This record gives sequence, C-alpha cells and structure tokens, in this order.
Amino acid sequence: MTGTAAPGASTAGTATIGTAAEVLSAHLAAQAGSFLRGLPAVDLRTLRRVGATLHTFDALLDAAWSRELREELGRLGGILSQEPAYGRRLTRLLTSLDSLTSIDVPAPGPSGGPVPKPREAEGLLARHPGAPKARALLERQLTLARSRAHTTALQELGSARFHALADRMTLLVSDLPLRNPGERGSAAVLLPYAVAEARALTSAVEALPLERAAAPYNGDALHDPGDDRPWIQVRGLTLRAQYALEVCAPQLGGRAARPAAALTELSRILARHRDAAEAAEAAALAALTPRITPATAYVLGVVHADQRLEVEAARHTFSSTWPDLYRTGWLTDSWLTR
Amino acid sequence: MTGTAAPGASTAGTATIGTAAEVLSAHLAAQAGSFLRGLPAVDLRTLRRVGATLHTFDALLDAAWSRELREELGRLGGILSQEPAYGRRLTRLLTSLDSLTSIDVPAPGPSGGPVPKPREAEGLLARHPGAPKARALLERQLTLARSRAHTTALQELGSARFHALADRMTLLVSDLPLRNPGERGSAAVLLPYAVAEARALTSAVEALPLERAAAPYNGDALHDPGDDRPWIQVRGLTLRAQYALEVCAPQLGGRAARPAAALTELSRILARHRDAAEAAEAAALAALTPRITPATAYVLGVVHADQRLEVEAARHTFSSTWPDLYRTGWLTDSWLTR
Repeated sequence: MTGTAAPGASTAGTATIGTAAEVLSAHLAAQAGSFLRGLPAVDLRTLRRVGATLHTFDALLDAAWSRELREELGRLGGILSQEPAYGRRLTRLLTSLDSLTSIDVPAPGPSGGPVPKPREAEGLLARHPGAPKARALLERQLTLARSRAHTTALQELGSARFHALADRMTLLVSDLPLRNPGERGSAAVLLPYAVAEARALTSAVEALPLERAAAPYNGDALHDPGDDRPWIQVRGLTLRAQYALEVCAPQLGGRAARPAAALTELSRILARHRDAAEAAEAAALAALTPRITPATAYVLGVVHADQRLEVEAARHTFSSTWPDLYRTGWLTDSWLTR
Repeated sequence: MTGTAAPGASTAGTATIGTAAEVLSAHLAAQAGSFLRGLPAVDLRTLRRVGATLHTFDALLDAAWSRELREELGRLGGILSQEPAYGRRLTRLLTSLDSLTSIDVPAPGPSGGPVPKPREAEGLLARHPGAPKARALLERQLTLARSRAHTTALQELGSARFHALADRMTLLVSDLPLRNPGERGSAAVLLPYAVAEARALTSAVEALPLERAAAPYNGDALHDPGDDRPWIQVRGLTLRAQYALEVCAPQLGGRAARPAAALTELSRILARHRDAAEAAEAAALAALTPRITPATAYVLGVVHADQRLEVEAARHTFSSTWPDLYRTGWLTDSWLTR
C-alpha cells in the first residue's frame, strides 16, 4: 500500500481514467457539488460518502486539512441524523404496534412476501386495552423528540460553523489538497486502500457470532441479546467499503457491480438491525414514563420484545447473506494484479 | 379395512403372534394392568393409551362398552391433567423469566446445545425492577391454581365414579368385550386401523400452514399468531398414530422402530408448542391482575412475547421434522401387502 502504481495495472486503462489524484479529485468534487446544489437541505449520505472517502484515502491527502474536514463532517452528521432517526423509530414502532393490533392486515412475511393464509390475520394485541394508550404515548414522545432534533438541526444549519464547512466543500469542488501535489501515480494506486477497507470489514465480520446467528430461534433476541455495538460498527465498515469501491469504480469497470450490489444489500440488513435496536430502546424508555397504566406497560413490553426479535432476525439474515459478498470474488489480492 | 386377513400377512408370523383379538386383548390387558398396579397414583399416559386404542380399534369392540369407557377415561384425564399442566406452566414461565433476567447463565441454544460466546450472557430483563415482582406474581398464581387442581384430583380419585372406572379396567385385564366374539381374523386385521390413523394425521398436518412455518422469523409469533387449535389437534392425532403403531408392533417387528421414533419426536415438539401456548396465555392472564405495577406488567408483556416466540419456533421445528416421518416409509399401503 505505497504511493507507487501496482505492477499489473493496465496502462491503456489508466491513460483514459487519469491519475489517482485526478480520479479522487473528480469523485470528491462530484460529491461536494451535490452537497452545495442541495443546500439548504443536506443529504446525510453525501456527508457520509465524503467523510468515508477522506478516511479511506487519507494517506493521499493533506493530513491536517483532511482530519479537520472529517471531524466537521462527523459532527454535522451526528447532529443532522437525529431528526430522521427519531422519525424512523416512530414509523417503525407505530407500524409494529399497528401490525400487533391488526385484525385484518396480513403480517409482513419473509422477503418472498406474505404466504397466503386461509383466514384473516390477527395480531397478538388485537383488541388489547393498552394498545391505543401505548400508541399515543410512543407517538407523543417520539414526535416531541423529533421536533426538538429539528430545531437543533435548523440552528446548526444557520450557524457560522456550518457556513465554514460549506466553504470547505466549495474548495473541494475545485482544488483537492493533496499530500504530494506533484504525485502522478496511476489510478491503480487507489485500489490497495479499498482492499484495506475490505479487509477491515472482513475482520470485523469474522469477530461477530455468525455461527450462532445462523441458527434460527437461537434465543438471542430476548435471552441473550448481547452487544449491538459490533454489529453497528460492521454497518459503518460496510458503508466505508461500499464508498471506497465507488471511488475505484472507473478502473474496475464491470467487476465492481456485483460486490457493490452485495454491499448495498448487507448495509440494508444492518440498517434494519440498527433501527430495530434503537426502536426497542425507545419502547423500553417509554415504559419508564411515570403514571402509565399496567396495560400500557404490558403492550410496550410486547413491542420491545418484537423489536428485539427483529434484531435477531436481521442478524440471522446477515449471517446467511454475508457469504454472497465472497462469492462475487471481490477485493481480494487478485483484483490488484489482474 | 374389512375384518378379513390382508392377503400378504405372513401365516408363520400370525401363528406366533395370535389373532387380532388376542393381540388387542394382550395390549389392553397390559395397559390396564399397569393402571391398576400404579394405583392410587394414575399415569396419564396409560389413560391416554387405553383411550386412543379403544378409539382406533373401535370397530372390533363392543360398541356401547367401548364408548362409555372412552368417555370416562377422557373425563378423568381432563381432570387429572390440570395439576401437572399448571406445574409445567409454572416451571416454564419461571425458567423463561430466570433466563430473561440472568446475568451469567447462557441462554438455551438450539438442539445442538449453546454455542460458546466470548462474553457473559445477559438476559434482556437483567436488573429490570419489574422482574422480581412478576416472578412472585406468576409463582403465586400458578402455585395456587396447581393446589386447587390437586384438591380436585384427590376428590376425583376418592369418588365412586373413579372406583367404577377401576372396575372396568379390571375387566379389561381378563376379558375384552369384542363386537364379534367368535371372530378369528389374523393380527393383520389390525393394520388397516393403524393406517387409518396415519391417514387422519397426514390430512390434518397437510392442512397446517407448514410452508409459512418453514420460513424462520415469519412474524407469526406476534404479528399473526393464528389459531393454536389445529396444532394441538395434530398433537392428539400424532399420539393416536403412535399408540396404534404400538398395538401393531408385534406383527410389524423392526419396521415399526423408525416411524415410532419419528412420531415420538413429533409429539415432543408439539408438546412444546402446547406448553408454550398455555404459558403465554398464563402470562397474559397474570397481567390482568388488578393493582400490579407498570414495571411488573412490562415484564409480563416480554414473557408473553417470549412464549409466543417459542410457539413460532416449535412450529418451525415441526415443519422441518415432519418429512422425517415420511422418509421412514411408514404406514403406507405397501405396509399392508408386504
């Protein structure tokens, strides 16, 4: 992983694609342009893409500038992500509760769609007296939290700090600060950095309890939910690997398509894991509200268990989907020498 | 399914085994003897075996006598089964709650045993303030119900009606009332009745939503639990098929071993289904107790969901285990002509 061109890189291809610096500049310029055109709205995925790209290819960039911009992007992303996160929690919990109390809506089936049943579906909490109160409580608490997060986001978008960040993004469109501005290495120089992200992801996934998650109904949802954090970290690494692959897409051509699709699917599963874990937490918090009725608390207990079950199901799906990425033969060393 | 010997029945084997009447008499005499020797304790499995055998081979027995004895056996079984049922519910719910609140006991894994984990297991409700109260409430309610069922059982065992039943069982040891006492058909006559039970079981299983149950995390536990009754009926039919096979065991010899083992496994899975469904119901009932705290109710909601998840898991296991019975090539028509 040095700054010199990998020996097997195609010279013809490189001539068309440009140098590593040109490819990286073009990618970041496109992202920064998208960010600036979207203002005053901010697309969180663009923030995350720029931040991840700065992280992955840090060794090629001006060190202090890159670190500062990443810190600012991370901070802004943390603030702006609160409002949609509360919105997702609200939608997820109300959808869960409505399905638990439904008397005629079929429950969502596995990915193949709901299997037809010979009778009307009826949720576990259909006609339960605590259900309307639990629904109102969750709606009130999460709507309030979302409104507060909205206010905080608006304040942030009007701050001098945000305008300074927008100025940095403007610079990114025209003039990427490189560590060695004279460097003329081919685009193949970028690949080892993407491979390093792939390796980091693989190591983190291999540390997950995948064998256990592969056994359906393993009891982890309720009896031993374990730690959600390693799974949430794997989601971050999956996105980073996905964005690194996007940067290298011009030189990889068609080879990037299948791993990119597999990474997208994995990050979708892990987003479901994160959303369910956060929703379960929100239901547990709502149950601590003073002066709620026992019926309300009972329903929140069922909703909490339901979301933890979703966490277990997401881990199970991840364990069976992860090998798909390998079957694409993605970012192994062979990619570097082809 | 007539009263004449099937053409392929081995004459040599029949000579050793005896006539259909002799085989049936010997089987019921052995069960009745076991019942009488066990008094004053009553083994519910013996009651169920005798009742099922009378049902399956009803066409060979004195009609009025058979019907009356079956009714008495069913009634007694219904009364005596209450105490152990409350005991099972109590054990199951306290085990569930202890596992949900455990801070160092690994959760029960799938049949292969718990997969080792690199850290201490911790249940979802570990350190939850409602857990001790919910445990005390369940223990109090189910212990009381079990005590009442015990009193009712003792009264029943001291009643004139029970003594009349014991007298009927004494008759069964020595003198089985047959419909046609002169009938000398070979033991092969019994087989079509066992096949009819196998067919009844197969029809009932084919009406279950097995395709849906086969998809793990299908959401049926909470979002669409459906009707437990068809599954509970299939358990009854599984036991009946199992007991009919036992009656035919002398003539089937080694051929009966594998289907008998498969039926035992299926009835074990369905007993788990029934126990979990009943335990879930008990947790829901406990949550209706007046003046409980919201924290207690919350824990009962989680426990209820946990038991419904067990119901879903049992259905999933049944869906994947049921084909094992078929692979034994059991009670198909070929058995009758071999």
